[in-house]
Amino acid sequence: MGPGPINADPRVLRAMAAPLVGQFDPWMTEAMNSTMELYRGVFDTTNEQTFLIDGTSRAGIEAALVSLLEPGDRVLVPVFGRFGHLLQEIAQRCGADVHTIEVPWGEVFEADAIEAAIRDVRPKVLAIVQGDTATTMCQPLADIGEVCRREGVLLYVDATASLGGNEFRTDAWGIDIATAGLQKCLGGPSGSAPITISPKAAEVINGRKHVEAGIRDAADAAVGARIASNYLDLAQVMDYWGPRRLNHHTEATSMLYAARECARLLVDEGMDNAVVRHELHGGAMLAGVRGLGLEVFGDVAHKMTNVVAVHIPAGIDGDGARASMLHDYGIEIGTSFGPLHGKVWRIGTMGYNARRDAVLVTLAALEQVLRAGGADITGGGGTAAALEFYADEFHEEVTA
Amino acid sequence: MGPGPINADPRVLRAMAAPLVGQFDPWMTEAMNSTMELYRGVFDTTNEQTFLIDGTSRAGIEAALVSLLEPGDRVLVPVFGRFGHLLQEIAQRCGADVHTIEVPWGEVFEADAIEAAIRDVRPKVLAIVQGDTATTMCQPLADIGEVCRREGVLLYVDATASLGGNEFRTDAWGIDIATAGLQKCLGGPSGSAPITISPKAAEVINGRKHVEAGIRDAADAAVGARIASNYLDLAQVMDYWGPRRLNHHTEATSMLYAARECARLLVDEGMDNAVVRHELHGGAMLAGVRGLGLEVFGDVAHKMTNVVAVHIPAGIDGDGARASMLHDYGIEIGTSFGPLHGKVWRIGTMGYNARRDAVLVTLAALEQVLRAGGADITGGGGTAAALEFYADEFHEEVTA
Repeated sequence: MGPGPINADPRVLRAMAAPLVGQFDPWMTEAMNSTMELYRGVFDTTNEQTFLIDGTSRAGIEAALVSLLEPGDRVLVPVFGRFGHLLQEIAQRCGADVHTIEVPWGEVFEADAIEAAIRDVRPKVLAIVQGDTATTMCQPLADIGEVCRREGVLLYVDATASLGGNEFRTDAWGIDIATAGLQKCLGGPSGSAPITISPKAAEVINGRKHVEAGIRDAADAAVGARIASNYLDLAQVMDYWGPRRLNHHTEATSMLYAARECARLLVDEGMDNAVVRHELHGGAMLAGVRGLGLEVFGDVAHKMTNVVAVHIPAGIDGDGARASMLHDYGIEIGTSFGPLHGKVWRIGTMGYNARRDAVLVTLAALEQVLRAGGADITGGGGTAAALEFYADEFHEEVTA
Repeated sequence: MGPGPINADPRVLRAMAAPLVGQFDPWMTEAMNSTMELYRGVFDTTNEQTFLIDGTSRAGIEAALVSLLEPGDRVLVPVFGRFGHLLQEIAQRCGADVHTIEVPWGEVFEADAIEAAIRDVRPKVLAIVQGDTATTMCQPLADIGEVCRREGVLLYVDATASLGGNEFRTDAWGIDIATAGLQKCLGGPSGSAPITISPKAAEVINGRKHVEAGIRDAADAAVGARIASNYLDLAQVMDYWGPRRLNHHTEATSMLYAARECARLLVDEGMDNAVVRHELHGGAMLAGVRGLGLEVFGDVAHKMTNVVAVHIPAGIDGDGARASMLHDYGIEIGTSFGPLHGKVWRIGTMGYNARRDAVLVTLAALEQVLRAGGADITGGGGTAAALEFYADEFHEEVTA
């Protein structure tokens, strides 16, 4: 019940045990094609270029940025938590001219502030996180996409922590590249990074395509500034997933099976229903921690559905309490990074863990641990508040 | 039965279905530690820095090169097949000053030739493939390590296609970094890249360590030229796997389970025994294709144990025959890259496919397909030669 990685859906674990076939076997290429189509559903896009990067969510971020950003390109990164710093850091390593704006941890940006910064910096790319798990905040994006389109800026969004549990509209919001990971609301293991790329962004990236010696033919004359990574070179990865099937890496077949099953389960459920499910169980957890008497961190109006941060009560040993939750009750909760390390706990309700029993057991156990630590809590207040939340007529309907 | 990826050992597939735990759960960190120890056995090394890169084998190569090579550093790449070109290409993307020497595909280098090139180029790093699947050749490395030590050159080896099926001695041969993948002789799925790093190489890499903002503390002042990749920054990855457990990516837990099971099976078998097994079944396949009347490509004295390339007989439609092998008999064999594309077939006997029944069924099916295509083959000659090879007293002993 931490902020992710979470325990995967058993159906996803089972999918990984399927036998492997060769990478250009028609059955395999069909599995790749169906994975692309399923992730178009997950990302709510018609983008042809929708596939997987073989690495963790961070590999997806780096693939997007290293493929878009040439050395010296200006990029604007609005930072509202640790993962904004990560985008900044990766963009710096790409040799980009990186500009940042910041709000305090626990807040999000107004679209106006981002628009003003875009006009000031004139970046090629705006790179922003949707949900920063470090702070639990979810940045509204619809208006920002509009601004980027108007200003001719490419919009990259890191949706790792949010996708599947919070509304996400690649096309409607005008997002050029979005990346994610399986280990949050998608309900799978870390190790595969779904990505979607707009035709406009694909064109920019393909302008930098260099095909490897050894498999290159005459039509592959080099153009543009070569992408600094081979492994994360989206121009080559697009040719591998596309009809040309040009050899690049060897697709991570078992992780593809996992990623495909994650998407299949979500698309079957319906992406909107999956968001409602995360709202429901995240709402119950929020009510529950408040019912215990804990103070919630950050701007609750902009909290992600799938994780809540609470201030560790004064006098409580935060790490000791987490250890007791894990060792005595078998439940993991997290602390956070940087300025929030040791100050808050983060409790997730995402993917397979967005379940009523998981919420209630966590609240029951947390009550025991807090009481044992001497905290001033409301006995029974956590589960009672969560049950009351579930009993609300609207929420009853959702769970039915 | 292609040159890899191959169908994984069922025990490895099963291992991936195990439940996940959080990345800093003591059970998980113990799983990481035991994986490190098992891969010390696989690489035959005492290197503390022995772990996994979360990506395919190519991610391991890029992690090694991007972490070692600063822009402008000289690197020497002896090229004897496609994967030498890949090392060249990745090193170029690192901004290195890349020098190559080449031998024709189907041959390997004499140590003297490499020594002469080292004295000429004076590189910081010698980057070389052990087994180039494109040509099936296995480069002898023991003397090259000796030369590198004497000349003060760091030795990087890509052992993706060879490790587990051909002798490999990290420490005894003086190799500074070696990387691999699971999808060849290790018997697992693509998607995890084992790596081992000597103390000397680790020191070079740690000289370039930059810890991310957001998790950095005062002791982490930046030094050296920052590594151009964040995801593949070995300095950070070492801190994640090491006692500091500094957050970096989120370890790909299911792939770690797979990688650990691959290593456990090999270490249980004994690395020397695993090589003998690959020699046995690779030898039987070699005898078998010759028994059918096919001509073997390249310098057989330097062939990897685990793959053989044969010239496609004149008049045979190579792709059609491969399609028939796959569609009619359920057996994949490969062609090759670049100058060998459509000229040879490559047949593997590696990992879980290094088995007597797999060899014999493949030879039996290949005979049918060749006959149907009108090739002049020796009916029954393939399986007879393989069975004769297996019946040899010494080989009987090995299989017993």
